[in-house]
Amino acid sequence: MTFREDGYAAVDWAAAYLDRVGELPVLAQVRPGELSEKLPDSAPEHGEPFANVLSDLDELIVPALTNWQHPRFFAYFAVTASEPGILAELLAAAMQQVALNWRSSPASTELELRTVDWVRQLLGLPEGWHGHIEDTASTGTMAALIAARHVTQRNVVVCSEHAHSSVEKAARMLGMELRKVPVDDELRMRADGLDLSDVAVVVPTVGTTSFASVDPVRELAERAHAAGAWVHVDAAYAGSSWILDEERWSQDGVELADSLVVNPHKWLLVPVDCSLLWTSRPDEFREAFSLVPEYLRTPEDAYALSEYGPALGRRFRSLKLWAVLRCYGAEGLRAMHREHIRLARLFADWVEADPDWELVAPLRFSLVVFRRIGSDEENEAIVERANRSGEIFLSHTRLDGRYVLRLAIGNARTTEDDVRRAWEVLNR
Amino acid sequence: MTFREDGYAAVDWAAAYLDRVGELPVLAQVRPGELSEKLPDSAPEHGEPFANVLSDLDELIVPALTNWQHPRFFAYFAVTASEPGILAELLAAAMQQVALNWRSSPASTELELRTVDWVRQLLGLPEGWHGHIEDTASTGTMAALIAARHVTQRNVVVCSEHAHSSVEKAARMLGMELRKVPVDDELRMRADGLDLSDVAVVVPTVGTTSFASVDPVRELAERAHAAGAWVHVDAAYAGSSWILDEERWSQDGVELADSLVVNPHKWLLVPVDCSLLWTSRPDEFREAFSLVPEYLRTPEDAYALSEYGPALGRRFRSLKLWAVLRCYGAEGLRAMHREHIRLARLFADWVEADPDWELVAPLRFSLVVFRRIGSDEENEAIVERANRSGEIFLSHTRLDGRYVLRLAIGNARTTEDDVRRAWEVLNR
Repeated sequence: MTFREDGYAAVDWAAAYLDRVGELPVLAQVRPGELSEKLPDSAPEHGEPFANVLSDLDELIVPALTNWQHPRFFAYFAVTASEPGILAELLAAAMQQVALNWRSSPASTELELRTVDWVRQLLGLPEGWHGHIEDTASTGTMAALIAARHVTQRNVVVCSEHAHSSVEKAARMLGMELRKVPVDDELRMRADGLDLSDVAVVVPTVGTTSFASVDPVRELAERAHAAGAWVHVDAAYAGSSWILDEERWSQDGVELADSLVVNPHKWLLVPVDCSLLWTSRPDEFREAFSLVPEYLRTPEDAYALSEYGPALGRRFRSLKLWAVLRCYGAEGLRAMHREHIRLARLFADWVEADPDWELVAPLRFSLVVFRRIGSDEENEAIVERANRSGEIFLSHTRLDGRYVLRLAIGNARTTEDDVRRAWEVLNR
Repeated sequence: MTFREDGYAAVDWAAAYLDRVGELPVLAQVRPGELSEKLPDSAPEHGEPFANVLSDLDELIVPALTNWQHPRFFAYFAVTASEPGILAELLAAAMQQVALNWRSSPASTELELRTVDWVRQLLGLPEGWHGHIEDTASTGTMAALIAARHVTQRNVVVCSEHAHSSVEKAARMLGMELRKVPVDDELRMRADGLDLSDVAVVVPTVGTTSFASVDPVRELAERAHAAGAWVHVDAAYAGSSWILDEERWSQDGVELADSLVVNPHKWLLVPVDCSLLWTSRPDEFREAFSLVPEYLRTPEDAYALSEYGPALGRRFRSLKLWAVLRCYGAEGLRAMHREHIRLARLFADWVEADPDWELVAPLRFSLVVFRRIGSDEENEAIVERANRSGEIFLSHTRLDGRYVLRLAIGNARTTEDDVRRAWEVLNR
């Protein structure tokens, strides 16, 4: 294998894919098992040229992709793997750092601490918080629950009925009891009347998955702390928007958090996986994970990021965060956020102006939640037809049992034309 | 940013790095904080060209790398990010799959199931086992403990005193009780006299981190099952060697396992992170993680790999496993394993033939554990001097309190000359 030639070919393939991704179906148009049937049953006995892998990408893999890089991907939360982030993954793999501890990769360890601190500043979070990278918010939230149980010696988790499933999953994995709290008419977790006396951790969400609603973090945090509970804020999606002064309203009370998760792989152009986890109580947080007794600590240990989460081996994820922050700069990221929020406002205006449609939740950030006036079945049929067309991909949720549509704007390629096209497809 | 130009430059950088990695110091020759001092305090306001990132790699990052790709990296377990694996990471990042469930990425989901099954066949593991990819063995082992607790409704974990720290860490995170069992004179967990009546899971290791010793899996599994406990086998390092018929002796009893972890990012040329987790009891395993009640299942759900582990978002890790298996083929991987095992035997022979040195554990796989006749301080000084020289990097462990050296062979670039050089440096 000639690495340079194969590498150029891989870059060409990636460039061509990104050039034409907007012409591919957004949602994969295959049935379950269709790719599996085309893949050989066994690994080859003899090695093949890398060119075969590239040609099979076109033959086998691309038809089975749901194209998250597509400008009309509006499902879940839309994301972008930006070009500096993509190339940084190549470089990180070449350098193959395994940051078990400081000495096994000073570069990965120190760049991670620094770049995560850069993001902390961009988002206006308190000085002195300790931040590191986990793969996903599921892992970060699980780590926070572990720390909370360790510190409080209690076993109950409290979150909104609209909290992300990862909170329930983490509680279940850890054997903790979950209590879901109802929401008010703006879909915010109710803080009144909560008895937190036996609670380990309260998990307010800033930007819920279904509706992007914002729980009353300050009130919840004050009550939690008064009761001796930990506060973990899930701002996986919406936290990135704090890069804009005008979105900082949703940060109210977050400075009281004991831990916080924000995902640059959602709305800061970093390829998956890159989820940031900060804690304002790093020593107690670390105690929950570290197997190193205090009397054996060395100065190097202060840097061992594996002591702040479940995994020992850690890859060089900060490289892509660094590349993205440098190549876009703060102003580039702010411009993208403003545009996405503007497009969401525009779409919401169309919905509001049309008597056949209605907004079903207050517009927050870049997520529009809406439905066509009519039955659940009609709305479901609209979504299924739109997704099967391959022209757009959006997802749904339920509000008080009713089927509702979600249009999430978050891909860097998305333009006003794409949003208009979505509106046309839905109205067809 | 012109993606093609920047991409070629990134490929050139990676190629040049790999060309000269053998001339760099193996262990980073910086002090804690040295890189941090050189990094700006804040993210840039304005975007920069990608070329600046590349030039800063040379200026800032490379001096702070511990070079895991170096042919004289003999510490921990030596690993390799091979060229097809590196390029696959670029491609995976470009495609930005987030495999929450089947429909969000049929390609990632089905390729993962198939390639992990390819490895199952190569290693001679039982048909019908369900396999998927986690980031690290820490996560896979934690997932196994979660499943074991769910199935057995018990809370005790049993492993050897030489089991990897990830077992203890997982037990700690989950609030499970850990019991460490002493070893026999070949450093194997003792199976006699174990009371497993209240035990959730027994974790035998094939290839312990310190000594590559092999626990008596068959006897432990039979006793565990008789007592109603789960059996999770940690073969993170040594499991890959089962690609060779002559190493299958260490697989005896593994067919009885309820779950098994093997890391292709250790000894199968895949860039970190790629750890495989199989279970012979997939339905019960999934129950521990899934939030989808049985009556809501659809045929697609059978493929949702997020239901077999902690994370919901999953990146396209199978692409690099696929690329490596195809470009090396089974014979290429076998050839590398045979060579590494030969080199370890060679080094062990030099140690045994020299009256100044002694082997301290039976030679297993590609790990030599040895010491110079003399005090702990002398041995420690030898390691520290060797590592500081930058010529080789090896790590140590303790056996019955004594400081002993570990030489782990596992990098694809390592030649007989490199191993001879290590011997010379240690004898200098």
